[in-house]
Amino acid sequence: MSNPAKAIGVDFGGTGIKPAVVQAGVIIQRGEKVDTRSHIAAGTLFDALFNAIAALRRDHPDVVAVGVGLPGFVDTDKGLVHGLANVPGWDEVPLLKMLRERTGLRAAIENDANAMAYAEFRHGAARGATNALCITLGTGVGGGLILDGRLYRGSRFAAGELGHTSIDLHGPRGVYGTPGDLEVYVGNRNIAERASRLYVASGNVRSPEECTPADLDKLAQAGDPIALAMWDTLGTEIGAALTNAVWLLNPDTIVVGGGIAAAGKLIFSPIRRTLRDRTSKLFNEQLRLVAAALGNDAGILGCAELALEAGE
Amino acid sequence: MSNPAKAIGVDFGGTGIKPAVVQAGVIIQRGEKVDTRSHIAAGTLFDALFNAIAALRRDHPDVVAVGVGLPGFVDTDKGLVHGLANVPGWDEVPLLKMLRERTGLRAAIENDANAMAYAEFRHGAARGATNALCITLGTGVGGGLILDGRLYRGSRFAAGELGHTSIDLHGPRGVYGTPGDLEVYVGNRNIAERASRLYVASGNVRSPEECTPADLDKLAQAGDPIALAMWDTLGTEIGAALTNAVWLLNPDTIVVGGGIAAAGKLIFSPIRRTLRDRTSKLFNEQLRLVAAALGNDAGILGCAELALEAGE
Repeated sequence: MSNPAKAIGVDFGGTGIKPAVVQAGVIIQRGEKVDTRSHIAAGTLFDALFNAIAALRRDHPDVVAVGVGLPGFVDTDKGLVHGLANVPGWDEVPLLKMLRERTGLRAAIENDANAMAYAEFRHGAARGATNALCITLGTGVGGGLILDGRLYRGSRFAAGELGHTSIDLHGPRGVYGTPGDLEVYVGNRNIAERASRLYVASGNVRSPEECTPADLDKLAQAGDPIALAMWDTLGTEIGAALTNAVWLLNPDTIVVGGGIAAAGKLIFSPIRRTLRDRTSKLFNEQLRLVAAALGNDAGILGCAELALEAGE
Repeated sequence: MSNPAKAIGVDFGGTGIKPAVVQAGVIIQRGEKVDTRSHIAAGTLFDALFNAIAALRRDHPDVVAVGVGLPGFVDTDKGLVHGLANVPGWDEVPLLKMLRERTGLRAAIENDANAMAYAEFRHGAARGATNALCITLGTGVGGGLILDGRLYRGSRFAAGELGHTSIDLHGPRGVYGTPGDLEVYVGNRNIAERASRLYVASGNVRSPEECTPADLDKLAQAGDPIALAMWDTLGTEIGAALTNAVWLLNPDTIVVGGGIAAAGKLIFSPIRRTLRDRTSKLFNEQLRLVAAALGNDAGILGCAELALEAGE
């Protein structure tokens, strides 16, 4: 049997370009990480991208496909990128065509949250799922959907924005004006500010900088009651948003990734309890709630996979 | 060109069986409506169903397919019905097999909310949609999803339960224990009770029986401030639940049907405003919000269509 085909996956963010060669769902070589900020200033961002790809192809001339994941709105039908976080002037960039023409390889471009969901589906925690919801918890809260065994993108390629769904129609407003926007409750910065306020109120002053998810994890492990209560509240809030998605989509798998997923049982227990208490048996008895398996590599792996599956 | 094929669609509820012959998305003959309650007591429910189908086939011997829509959980993969509202003892009824064997026709069974959504997609208000969410507002609040141009059923055939999604994680509990369950706010009985309380508090006593959606429609048309405020509140609450579905699914079409959709602008205006104010332009500028077009016939039309498209 021949070896599985190799592809290059590129995690193309507003601050860094991370390229790697992928084979059979595993990164076999990482390229040098490129700091994009100087290239943005100099207008040489695409040169940096194609140089990074070319460097990896010198070591792996048998690469057959290249996929790029970006944190913006990516029109996968037309192959266009509409805006990229931190990169002014990106509007309707025909990146798919550029990739094909400049590499001669088959290619794919994809929103990074979708790429991560697809990687978890093909090679990670959602393997074997038919309908999976992936949520990533960080400074922002993002998500991606696998429905009927395929990546679901929505009518403007923007589906899966679980971070902007509301858990309280009269709650505090998020960046798009949505009252009760989940990110306002469980985005990392908001967690830190909420926890800090609780500590200050208790007379045990901690600054927001001392209330990162990692800090709260350590404090809770040591039995600190405020940290324990905070995790329970966060899990209930995340669980409330996931409950809505479960009633709507009746998935078999939910994958939770990102910084606060590292807190393990502290966050998974209240999420699981909330899902069980707020949905019916038909919806929750067959539902797997699992931690993401691929970490920060998911974006690279997902767009490499999508590129391999893309047409010529 | 030959005439389009005919199918029989049956709306099989807990209180009545409504059969009809459908051709090209239009009902061309209605069968007699059967009151199911006496048949349930006598154990002759299936005889009543097959007699109703046979009666229509005598007039239309060229019928090629039969579809039955039911208000329960319908396993379309295995062809089983798990429970039917108001019919005790229904558990794992192999209705698809029975339909095929007793009629010799190709057949389909489907959850009634799904059948309605499919009818609106193929022949009604969601024609031309790629991703559509259909919500039906009545005593209960139900829904169905068309995603990537196909009926989306979920892992246990139970997707689309928008009525049990939550608009407030600390709100009053619905029938499945979900705090903030939409149905608790906008189900017909709850609307009547809420409106009645407002009238009583204002000194203008109206019983819940005098606060049906039709009553509130008339009152609002006459400028009654409580009724006007009530419609605005209901639209905001429905809009809040739809907003969550929009962030998650990025649909191009939302179809609103059922009793209170008849209030027209009174309910559509606040829903539209809420969707616009609580989602981003990318999500709302291409989103059509439309009234259901097929009314009570949607279930019959949808399962007839699914039967025509079913394999032998």
